[in-house]
Amino acid sequence: MAAIRVTRLAAMNTHADSALQRARSAMDDLGVDALLVGPGADLRYLTGYRALALERLTLLVARADGATSLFVPELERARALASPLPDVVEVVSFAETEDPYALVAERLDDGGRYGVGDRLWATFLLHLQQRLAKSEWVTSSTVTRHLRMSKSPEEVDALRRAGQAIDRVHEQVPSLLRPGRTEAQVGREVADLILAEGHEAVNFVIVASGPNGASPHHETGERALVHSDAVVVDIGGTLDGYCSDCTRNYVIGAAADGYTEAHAALEAAQIAACNAVGPGVTAESVDAVARLALRDAGYGEFFVHRTGHGIGLEEHEDPYIVEGNDLILRPGMTFSIEPGVYLPDRFGIRIEDIVAVTEDGCERLNTLSRAAVPV
Amino acid sequence: MAAIRVTRLAAMNTHADSALQRARSAMDDLGVDALLVGPGADLRYLTGYRALALERLTLLVARADGATSLFVPELERARALASPLPDVVEVVSFAETEDPYALVAERLDDGGRYGVGDRLWATFLLHLQQRLAKSEWVTSSTVTRHLRMSKSPEEVDALRRAGQAIDRVHEQVPSLLRPGRTEAQVGREVADLILAEGHEAVNFVIVASGPNGASPHHETGERALVHSDAVVVDIGGTLDGYCSDCTRNYVIGAAADGYTEAHAALEAAQIAACNAVGPGVTAESVDAVARLALRDAGYGEFFVHRTGHGIGLEEHEDPYIVEGNDLILRPGMTFSIEPGVYLPDRFGIRIEDIVAVTEDGCERLNTLSRAAVPV
Repeated sequence: MAAIRVTRLAAMNTHADSALQRARSAMDDLGVDALLVGPGADLRYLTGYRALALERLTLLVARADGATSLFVPELERARALASPLPDVVEVVSFAETEDPYALVAERLDDGGRYGVGDRLWATFLLHLQQRLAKSEWVTSSTVTRHLRMSKSPEEVDALRRAGQAIDRVHEQVPSLLRPGRTEAQVGREVADLILAEGHEAVNFVIVASGPNGASPHHETGERALVHSDAVVVDIGGTLDGYCSDCTRNYVIGAAADGYTEAHAALEAAQIAACNAVGPGVTAESVDAVARLALRDAGYGEFFVHRTGHGIGLEEHEDPYIVEGNDLILRPGMTFSIEPGVYLPDRFGIRIEDIVAVTEDGCERLNTLSRAAVPV
Repeated sequence: MAAIRVTRLAAMNTHADSALQRARSAMDDLGVDALLVGPGADLRYLTGYRALALERLTLLVARADGATSLFVPELERARALASPLPDVVEVVSFAETEDPYALVAERLDDGGRYGVGDRLWATFLLHLQQRLAKSEWVTSSTVTRHLRMSKSPEEVDALRRAGQAIDRVHEQVPSLLRPGRTEAQVGREVADLILAEGHEAVNFVIVASGPNGASPHHETGERALVHSDAVVVDIGGTLDGYCSDCTRNYVIGAAADGYTEAHAALEAAQIAACNAVGPGVTAESVDAVARLALRDAGYGEFFVHRTGHGIGLEEHEDPYIVEGNDLILRPGMTFSIEPGVYLPDRFGIRIEDIVAVTEDGCERLNTLSRAAVPV
């Protein structure tokens, strides 16, 4: 069966339409001839299409000159056509036995400079590189990161609503933490609450108790909670397409030796970092504020990760709040402030809020108390 | 902080150890100098490490000459060291501000032929290509697909247990299907059952009712079930690292016009395709059996996808049961047989079992009746 080309005549998707226009303008500025974007956040940003990540190619080809085609497997055609694609997007579907790379190459010139989706699978990129062997390749975020970092008021509001939803989940966490229950049991119930509070997807659930808390990316395990456990609960989901992410700390009964002091130092560092956020400030200087505060309090060596990450359509996106990133913060940027203290074999603590840069500082999109919650 | 190198002395992971050995031997045969594999199934297969997919690089570098290094961000070091890595794997962790690609390039020669993980993100591959500009790049599946397709008896048994678990979920589906309930409500309860029956993760839940069933990849939506709906329920999870996947069809009350005939034709086609599976047969010939049976019954144009996909550590992997794939089936290969009939605006039907090729035919790992289940 030959490829089927369909130009959609559906209602215009205003956000995505203007996102495509902004991307074209940025491509011109940056000397990028086309974006080649697979399933994921850039595709959602540019077209509104929430594609499945499949072993079959799904690829948006958005040329700087305006021609825009979405290549989808035949069996995804109905989903693509039902999505809020802008009018200008031509949908091209291909059969199981057809070579989609030949179709893509027809739309492009070998020798161009192309921005491929940062998370496009290597297998797809290698096929494209084979077809377009003289071309130069950069990541699509070269073009999209500056666009996506500047959230519109509507996007900040979506993140605010997601933040409120995850805060409501945290308010219910104490009722789930009982000695004898495992992290995994608690994690499943937290996941249900994330959905019950309005998210359409659970992105991750970390319930790290006692010494497990000292591993920043421990998720959940079969460890049962015991008295005196400190429990790090770091959770997030997606609500109306935008992500939530918030970490708070819970203590079952009497806190372990050194916990109260460490939490107080961390809370002071997190507040200082939030207070440092504002337009004109660099990302790395916010990281430095948190880091210096913890170093001065004697915990410097136990803060083993960056201070934060951007958030929006993705849980982790630009801007990263990390040493070496001299990006200047601007109103509309949204990111986490989440310093942590990890004492090996003892406990971990992390306090995380999402903030949005405003005209004169920042707004916290998580508004819970930062204090450790006794259970 | 400088990269920290740790050679592990933990208990040997026998499966992964021998998988690495087999991969080295295949690399020699295929002229691949090293595999460069990120988070995902190849990494689990080769090392046992279940890495998180992060914007920070995690990369296994397994050289054909035996040197094997796992590069992880500093904050993943504890998780990596706690995983069942084979002894030979040197763990190299790097700090937030360190360039991991420089560390990787130290282990490799520019001008080599490297197999990168099929799903490695483009951003990582582009960085590697920049550092190793004279090298040739292929996908890691060039090396691993033949290894991973030949499941050991232990792996087939893991898939059998996953199949039994998902069958138990299907047995409980009728109690969830009631007029007035939405696909999304049913889907959430099915997801809970997938976990309750022993899976550690829910991979996907499709509850496609009435006309939604005619879109093969419709997931769940806000459509409420009504009398006479045909409902396609296609579900899968991961149990002990291996995936389940099974589709059955349910009918609420009296079936729609034409449904019974279409289901009967599909059931006959699915049985014929299962019967065609055996050692020495090509993948595409199994596809042809299902396709011809449906064509002869008058439904050819409504079977819009391939007959099946391999399954194991991934939901979709080699071998694909599709026209053009002349791979010869061998004992130990495991894949789905899932023809479907999709009548636009009316209903869809799909019957899916996982089968394992045996010495003289195949074993169905899903053993439910294929009949449509009246509710």
